[in-house]
Amino acid sequence: MDSDEFKRYGYRFVDWLAEYMDGVEKYPVHQPVEPGDIKDNLPENAPLKGEPLEDVFQDFQEIILPGITHWQHPFWFAYFPANNSPPSVLAEFLTAGLGAQCMIWKTSPAAEELEEVTLEWLRKMIGLPEGMAGVIQDTASTATLVALVTAREKATSFQTNDKGFTETLIVYTSEEAHSSVAKGAKIAGYGRENIRLIPADDKFAMIPEELDRAIREDKEKGLKPACVCATVGTTSSTGVDPLDRIGPVCQEHDVWLHVDAAFAGTAAILPEKRWIMNGVEYVDSFVFNPHKWMLTNFDCSAYFVKDPDVLQRTFDIHPEYLKTGVDAVVHNYRDWGIQLGRRFRALKLWFVLRYYGVEGLQAMVREHIRLADLLKGWIEKDDRFELMAPVDFSLVCFRFNDGDRSEEELNALNKKLLECINSTGKTLLTQTTLKGKYVIRVSIGQRTTQERHVRELWELIIAETKEIS
Amino acid sequence: MDSDEFKRYGYRFVDWLAEYMDGVEKYPVHQPVEPGDIKDNLPENAPLKGEPLEDVFQDFQEIILPGITHWQHPFWFAYFPANNSPPSVLAEFLTAGLGAQCMIWKTSPAAEELEEVTLEWLRKMIGLPEGMAGVIQDTASTATLVALVTAREKATSFQTNDKGFTETLIVYTSEEAHSSVAKGAKIAGYGRENIRLIPADDKFAMIPEELDRAIREDKEKGLKPACVCATVGTTSSTGVDPLDRIGPVCQEHDVWLHVDAAFAGTAAILPEKRWIMNGVEYVDSFVFNPHKWMLTNFDCSAYFVKDPDVLQRTFDIHPEYLKTGVDAVVHNYRDWGIQLGRRFRALKLWFVLRYYGVEGLQAMVREHIRLADLLKGWIEKDDRFELMAPVDFSLVCFRFNDGDRSEEELNALNKKLLECINSTGKTLLTQTTLKGKYVIRVSIGQRTTQERHVRELWELIIAETKEIS
Repeated sequence: MDSDEFKRYGYRFVDWLAEYMDGVEKYPVHQPVEPGDIKDNLPENAPLKGEPLEDVFQDFQEIILPGITHWQHPFWFAYFPANNSPPSVLAEFLTAGLGAQCMIWKTSPAAEELEEVTLEWLRKMIGLPEGMAGVIQDTASTATLVALVTAREKATSFQTNDKGFTETLIVYTSEEAHSSVAKGAKIAGYGRENIRLIPADDKFAMIPEELDRAIREDKEKGLKPACVCATVGTTSSTGVDPLDRIGPVCQEHDVWLHVDAAFAGTAAILPEKRWIMNGVEYVDSFVFNPHKWMLTNFDCSAYFVKDPDVLQRTFDIHPEYLKTGVDAVVHNYRDWGIQLGRRFRALKLWFVLRYYGVEGLQAMVREHIRLADLLKGWIEKDDRFELMAPVDFSLVCFRFNDGDRSEEELNALNKKLLECINSTGKTLLTQTTLKGKYVIRVSIGQRTTQERHVRELWELIIAETKEIS
Repeated sequence: MDSDEFKRYGYRFVDWLAEYMDGVEKYPVHQPVEPGDIKDNLPENAPLKGEPLEDVFQDFQEIILPGITHWQHPFWFAYFPANNSPPSVLAEFLTAGLGAQCMIWKTSPAAEELEEVTLEWLRKMIGLPEGMAGVIQDTASTATLVALVTAREKATSFQTNDKGFTETLIVYTSEEAHSSVAKGAKIAGYGRENIRLIPADDKFAMIPEELDRAIREDKEKGLKPACVCATVGTTSSTGVDPLDRIGPVCQEHDVWLHVDAAFAGTAAILPEKRWIMNGVEYVDSFVFNPHKWMLTNFDCSAYFVKDPDVLQRTFDIHPEYLKTGVDAVVHNYRDWGIQLGRRFRALKLWFVLRYYGVEGLQAMVREHIRLADLLKGWIEKDDRFELMAPVDFSLVCFRFNDGDRSEEELNALNKKLLECINSTGKTLLTQTTLKGKYVIRVSIGQRTTQERHVRELWELIIAETKEIS
């Protein structure tokens, strides 16, 4: 493809994306496709001869697009957001075009140094202690795995790296923690039976006294506590584990404290939400995702550690073919995580932070929180609904509950309500369970979501209750 | 940013990238920057107020670009290639704009099904057995870690996931294997001391009899062999482990066989190179990187497994908030690896496979191999140089050796030669050691590298020998 053809299609893709971003509302959020619908329209073999890009672009629009779930839709209220933004998308385009590898400083000095600088900006923006050093990971799942492996080595004086497991190490997390903690603990070799799920209180926050008790019990049994994974903003209900009370427990027992703030960490850029970071001085590692609620398109997970030497010592490799003359004085991010190859992800983060500025990002986050408070207010005023969790950020958990029904009935009814709402295609909501109760989640966080969308969502919910009650 | 501004900058970025791709040769491959040079030009804090994109783009060109190592340069001969292509870059742009999450089928059905289809195309293109199922991982390091974890579970009937390590499991790989095997074994909890580095022959291929011997020894000691990581195309010299002789050893001892073909796997699309896949019917898992030598921009690592059930059982998680009604009949790729969140990476692969077609990709790979053979021929004809490894693909390993010098002198001399060559900025070569000897690597694989570039490189090498001898 010569540069004329690249430009021709480049312009068309720019136009198409501009129209998509402006007009995404015309699509249903998710489409009524059945498993196999897309596959059935695709050939069984790659073409022998190359095909015109025109045909590929046409198939993209006619075959692929009808099977895409539109995560950037203003009616997107499912899971958590993974919002992007025009400056971020444009930066990703440059990153792809440069095609630079950022495994070590030498393989792209500017990429490494921009990563250092933008993460230092982020560290200050959310109020992490001075001295914590950052690195971009692909996801919070990966970052939590990295924390679990590092904690394992810290607890065993790096003996596990050398000898493998020689004693039983224990991981502690709340019963409300994300599944990535259990998954990471499995991958890192701890074993599922060595994960202690600490009870959460009625605000879905880990109970520090229960954590302390569990650690003491394990120590009495001769087991070694290695890592506590706390959560700031749980997936189910954005519960906030109290770091200022968990931290001293970890300190007393000399246990690594990792914090998963994947979604809610962004809220710490607001002074009025900075309380979620109380106790952060106790933290050994901390992750939050600018790719969730900070307009930076996936993937961009910001991982911070108090002691980068421990992190690097856990992951470092020194084969001859990767040695450079400056290894002692630069960050070689290949030693800060699992992957060797790394994309130039700092570029999009830099574009976002500069284009929107701290105040621009604060304004967006505040607006989402305001919209969630609005919805919360409507729910509280309507007797047929029940708010199921505190609304500290922009996630609202509720259920339909019009009075004298059993918990079993309510669960079935709300499951049906969710299906009715989603089957309209107009929005996508997801569910969770809180203390055994089936709960509907409304997660507000798209760049383009406005008050009218939340209002229409509420009207839709009300309308669909007629289908079930 | 409204769509007018997005379009305005979109067009400019298209123009800039078109010019960059056409004109990358005007830049030095790598630039004479010192650690800190970029950082020193960047402010210590994110801006409070948003800034015009114009300023960001200008700083990109003036501050960032001078610190970028140009991996897409036709004089790029370092490490392995990570080549991109215009259709791939354009597809990545669409992926960023759509911003869809591909963690499960439901979160983007078309993305999941396109991933299935394109990996099935790849499977056939490189001659993997029917029934092997594919998934895109970010890097071969991650894929190898995934293989090591899966092998661990297979060897212990999934008991390690549940109980943690209760016995000593052993990993086998060649002394020439990539550092990601040792790194993965550390992360997965095996421990470095439980990795057996099997000797390689004079072609840098694992010696199957030595593997068999090592496995028997470990079994006699009561240790449990869990995984053999073979390599097709080692990093140092593209050595090829003989799968047809390693496979029966693995089968006899019931040990998982993983193959890292990160770079060289692409060569299997050529009938004349298909021999590298001999014995592939024994393989449990296999990875190669379309992001290295198949024009698909990073990241896109194709990972195949014989038994997807074992893979999923190793990594699956089933929290309520991720359940969907179709889980039983679709691929939920979150259970095929470490990460939950996943980019829509199949799109760029699809663009590349369709735009170039199998024959287009074959032509590129053949040309690179032809260029490597040319260089090999020049080296062989010149008495002052010594070819250091077979040239089966497009990597040429050599050293300067003009006669009666000690190995120590030769190592120092070649290190100096490499520094002289690289200090010109005209190209970037990297080094390795083979059987204790310092060796210079020339890795040919850029989309735009032509005969004239390899010829000029050879002239440069010759010229620089005058500086050292």
